[in-house]
Amino acid sequence: MRVLGLIVEYNPFHNGHLYHIKKSVELINPDYTVAVMSGNFVQRGEPAIVDKFARTQMALSYGADVVFELPFVYCVQDAGGFACGSIGVLHRTGTVTDIVFGSESSDIGILNEISGILSSQPQEYTIILKKYLKEGLSFPNARKYAILDYLSSKSYPIENIQLLEKSNDILGLEYLNYLKQYGSSIQAHCIARQGSSYNDETVTSHLASATAVRNIIKEENIEFLKELIPEKSFEIILNEFKKGKGPVFFDSMREIILSKIRLMSKNDLLKVYGIKEGLEDRFYNYSRRSMDLECLLKNLKTKRFTYSRLKRALVHILFNISEREIKTYNSQGPQYLRVLGFNTKGKELLAHIKKKSRYPLIPTASQYYQIYKYLLKNQNDPDKKYDSDPIIYMDQINRDFDASNVYSLLYPEKEHAMFEPDKKNQIIIMEENDEKTSHY
Amino acid sequence: MRVLGLIVEYNPFHNGHLYHIKKSVELINPDYTVAVMSGNFVQRGEPAIVDKFARTQMALSYGADVVFELPFVYCVQDAGGFACGSIGVLHRTGTVTDIVFGSESSDIGILNEISGILSSQPQEYTIILKKYLKEGLSFPNARKYAILDYLSSKSYPIENIQLLEKSNDILGLEYLNYLKQYGSSIQAHCIARQGSSYNDETVTSHLASATAVRNIIKEENIEFLKELIPEKSFEIILNEFKKGKGPVFFDSMREIILSKIRLMSKNDLLKVYGIKEGLEDRFYNYSRRSMDLECLLKNLKTKRFTYSRLKRALVHILFNISEREIKTYNSQGPQYLRVLGFNTKGKELLAHIKKKSRYPLIPTASQYYQIYKYLLKNQNDPDKKYDSDPIIYMDQINRDFDASNVYSLLYPEKEHAMFEPDKKNQIIIMEENDEKTSHY
Repeated sequence: MRVLGLIVEYNPFHNGHLYHIKKSVELINPDYTVAVMSGNFVQRGEPAIVDKFARTQMALSYGADVVFELPFVYCVQDAGGFACGSIGVLHRTGTVTDIVFGSESSDIGILNEISGILSSQPQEYTIILKKYLKEGLSFPNARKYAILDYLSSKSYPIENIQLLEKSNDILGLEYLNYLKQYGSSIQAHCIARQGSSYNDETVTSHLASATAVRNIIKEENIEFLKELIPEKSFEIILNEFKKGKGPVFFDSMREIILSKIRLMSKNDLLKVYGIKEGLEDRFYNYSRRSMDLECLLKNLKTKRFTYSRLKRALVHILFNISEREIKTYNSQGPQYLRVLGFNTKGKELLAHIKKKSRYPLIPTASQYYQIYKYLLKNQNDPDKKYDSDPIIYMDQINRDFDASNVYSLLYPEKEHAMFEPDKKNQIIIMEENDEKTSHY
Repeated sequence: MRVLGLIVEYNPFHNGHLYHIKKSVELINPDYTVAVMSGNFVQRGEPAIVDKFARTQMALSYGADVVFELPFVYCVQDAGGFACGSIGVLHRTGTVTDIVFGSESSDIGILNEISGILSSQPQEYTIILKKYLKEGLSFPNARKYAILDYLSSKSYPIENIQLLEKSNDILGLEYLNYLKQYGSSIQAHCIARQGSSYNDETVTSHLASATAVRNIIKEENIEFLKELIPEKSFEIILNEFKKGKGPVFFDSMREIILSKIRLMSKNDLLKVYGIKEGLEDRFYNYSRRSMDLECLLKNLKTKRFTYSRLKRALVHILFNISEREIKTYNSQGPQYLRVLGFNTKGKELLAHIKKKSRYPLIPTASQYYQIYKYLLKNQNDPDKKYDSDPIIYMDQINRDFDASNVYSLLYPEKEHAMFEPDKKNQIIIMEENDEKTSHY
């Protein structure tokens, strides 16, 4: 049985995603396809343009049989933390056999080579890395130059000097790294990305980046949008907008984030993951002198910190996420498999996973507490069914609820903030043939 | 030299306020008039409809020679805490000789009688009070019935059974109480309120309550507004709206307050002043199930808690104000005299106050830190100039800055959130004759 695992955000699902999923299925010819998807916040440190339930519908419309939620605490992390969570979920299903990721280089050989360096961290490499960091380079840049220097010192033929600049290659390296860390037998494959690159803001073809698609949504250019995303995805997105459940933009968090930071001391800021090395002064001062988040980011920006890192830091501040917590999450991995949706085939697969996985499936959020009690009761039983730590389990899932409870305040139509979205037992079931979507 | 002290909010300044100020001046015939005014948040637990600088202009336009800011930590308290701060500021000027407050009963005799009971707390009275509280009455109601029972047990002739129901009488009692607590020689007077009462939402005459005036602003009924507030006040308000600095409403804090509470645990909530007796459960649950603040308040409301108390609790939650802090503030009183504005006469008075007061005048916010250093340096000097405690001083003034930094996010025009309003050295100086307003 071959089970294809995909790591996705679908923010929103566009033609490039459709191409990727088709190519991956061609390559693996899987019996089932599983997607692990960011929830209501994404890796760029932003709220998603439409919520995770709408994006689950997109995923199920275009080839995923089951969609799992990447726990919030991994969504809004750098490539390493993101990979820790997403590879963790796929590996811990106990059934995924292959993953396919998009890559600018699409050279799995060199990616494996480099990920070997990243996971073994040879001394020669770390010395060069530290040197570049000391020079004030951002971590991604320092790492890139350190790897290139190291490889060329080993006379490795470096053809692709841009390898560590592209976000998909960087993510790919971390996927490979975490497959090793989890001791996973999952086979990794990569395919070349088509069309615009991840961060491109302009549209050059019908294969626009998600960033460009979001900009077109911001400009309310609906006709153009139709050319860039597949029909079903377009329908789902328009339906969400009609209900007042989107679009949600980064600046929708203006008052929430600025009021939060403006009421924090520098000491409070220092307790947040990633806020150090003088960043606390910058956040303290500029939060009080910036009229919105765009201004704040411009004011905060230095060579050392990328916009994505700064945006993620804002989310960490908002949700009070500490260094210690991130360390725990990243050493322990995700503690549960939360199902956002499935189709008829997916239902079969979930039955397999339920038998094989050492981590609890959470089919509807209402069951999370029952599972917690079970974990607590059995944690010292040598024959226990699950490997989850009950405390970390509870912490991770409560963070998912927190994220949704804040996200719901960002919906343009206020009435959608009237309940806890995750506890309303929302799960997307897509029935065979008629592809109807139902919620229960 | 007679100096009249007024305790005001002017949210916004309307015909009733004009009547009160004229009558007070007639009664006292003062050499100078001083107002202590709520800052950007008012006693009802709401942000003011226009900011404290605009409202200072109103006060100076209609008879105040100097306007002091009531420190934020006293603005958003019940009648007791509000009186502690406002009487504290007036008393600590060392120059105010008389205060005049509006009162429904306008019977200073019975108010003094009752305030005597409140400050001496005879055992017979406290037993009755506890009985009523146990029955689930709100504190204001329990106190009202306990006082009436106590007075009738003493065969005191009770003519005015409504005495402790009206907000101005309740405030008046606390003013009298705190005059005793501070050992002040200030003479208290009261005059009957004209027109609608404080909380009336409808307009019955050109003397509407501030609540009614705010509702008319909400309805954008500008022509009607013109009949209810004096000309200068109308001009000032319209100018603020034109600049995008108002109107600010309670629900402008929707995302800020709901996101804040939705990310708090019950334990976090219990650390906030006034959150106890199961209130933490109600705030925890309903914050996650209310789409806006109006819904939240309706959900939270019980016989025991008034809307004002609930709104104040929301502000205390937002600003993390603890029981311990309120106790310190209310036992120590305000630690400085912060000047929001003055006219030419007021300048003379400020020179008197500077000589007489045991508390530092803060003429512009930029000087707060210099004064803090002075207080720190001299705190153990027996011949020190000021009685302020440097730590409480710093805490109180930082809270004023915090309040303004959050308030500025509520201005309809985002660009007014681009700096710290209090540190921009804004002070309103109204020159003689031409009544021009200048900022520096």
